[in-house]
Amino acid sequence: MLTEDALDTLFREGRSHNAWRDEPVSDETLREIYALTRMGPTSANSSPARFLFLRTREAKERLAPALSSGNHDKTMAAPVTAIIAYDPKFHDKLPTLFPHNPEARSWFTANEALAATTAFRNGTLQGAYFIIAARALGLDVGPMSGFDNDKVDGTFLAAQGWRSNFLCNLGYGDPTGLFARSPRLEFDEACILL
Amino acid sequence: MLTEDALDTLFREGRSHNAWRDEPVSDETLREIYALTRMGPTSANSSPARFLFLRTREAKERLAPALSSGNHDKTMAAPVTAIIAYDPKFHDKLPTLFPHNPEARSWFTANEALAATTAFRNGTLQGAYFIIAARALGLDVGPMSGFDNDKVDGTFLAAQGWRSNFLCNLGYGDPTGLFARSPRLEFDEACILL
Repeated sequence: MLTEDALDTLFREGRSHNAWRDEPVSDETLREIYALTRMGPTSANSSPARFLFLRTREAKERLAPALSSGNHDKTMAAPVTAIIAYDPKFHDKLPTLFPHNPEARSWFTANEALAATTAFRNGTLQGAYFIIAARALGLDVGPMSGFDNDKVDGTFLAAQGWRSNFLCNLGYGDPTGLFARSPRLEFDEACILL
Repeated sequence: MLTEDALDTLFREGRSHNAWRDEPVSDETLREIYALTRMGPTSANSSPARFLFLRTREAKERLAPALSSGNHDKTMAAPVTAIIAYDPKFHDKLPTLFPHNPEARSWFTANEALAATTAFRNGTLQGAYFIIAARALGLDVGPMSGFDNDKVDGTFLAAQGWRSNFLCNLGYGDPTGLFARSPRLEFDEACILL
């Protein structure tokens, strides 16, 4: 069981940040985020998520035309912006990732809809592990889905055949840029005990 | 920054469990899991995930016909099985959940594809927060997507109009039921620095 402080860091006091302190995020930290993220569970260990880390001004400027107006300035200002993507051909790696069942790859080559749903569901689970891992390492995050996925795919992911899922700014947040915390659904609005 | 022990609990030593110690999970613990889960970020605070907690033999027996053969026994044996679902009409709650933009609901009523993608993406992010929250509270999890979604929807979710995403067994794991840890992709296989 984690401490109350740790639960605060991960959930209760974690916020989606819009402004960033002038403090860089090292490549070593990005590697640590990934090293935690990759250990989270996925269906048949499919691990479809892929991550592009945009660190330079040049990389950010290639992203800018795909951003919604409300996401532009905070993204250009963030130390790092991650493109959380997934590989629709994730199943090609299953002989390595899921060695105890050599048939696993064929479940997905035989069923395109299952492959698409598995890639999106499990790539998204890993996107959430990424958010929590970054917070666990002391960073703040600003996840966003307000952007043009096709533009991002064409600009950054065409060579690999990957697809964008969402974006996530990374850095050390400036709390003066936060909005007020929005309400959440009560247990009885979102949960049923049977 | 969390302690190394906490990172182990959440990520490095967290495993998908198949066998369970004879130790119940209280309703209070289920409420604590939800109280943490709901604080994780979602797009426009949309919070589309819904959770059904199957605690009784009777509820489990209604689930049984929908389970793949490999998931049957461990699910029937788990203290609690959660149906991680989402509400396709999540946007009806946006006037409460996203009070600083009264237009938010109309983004989704005007665009069915956007509503469907937003429900599935953000409901899945919340499913991952749920997994991490359960581990943070000292529980073990066994998430599964090997089941018949339509059967689960028809049996459990028709009245609410919700849809099933994945299942997650909850309890205190018996490590003798674990498979060997499967390999993960190296940083350079899954990540690109730009």
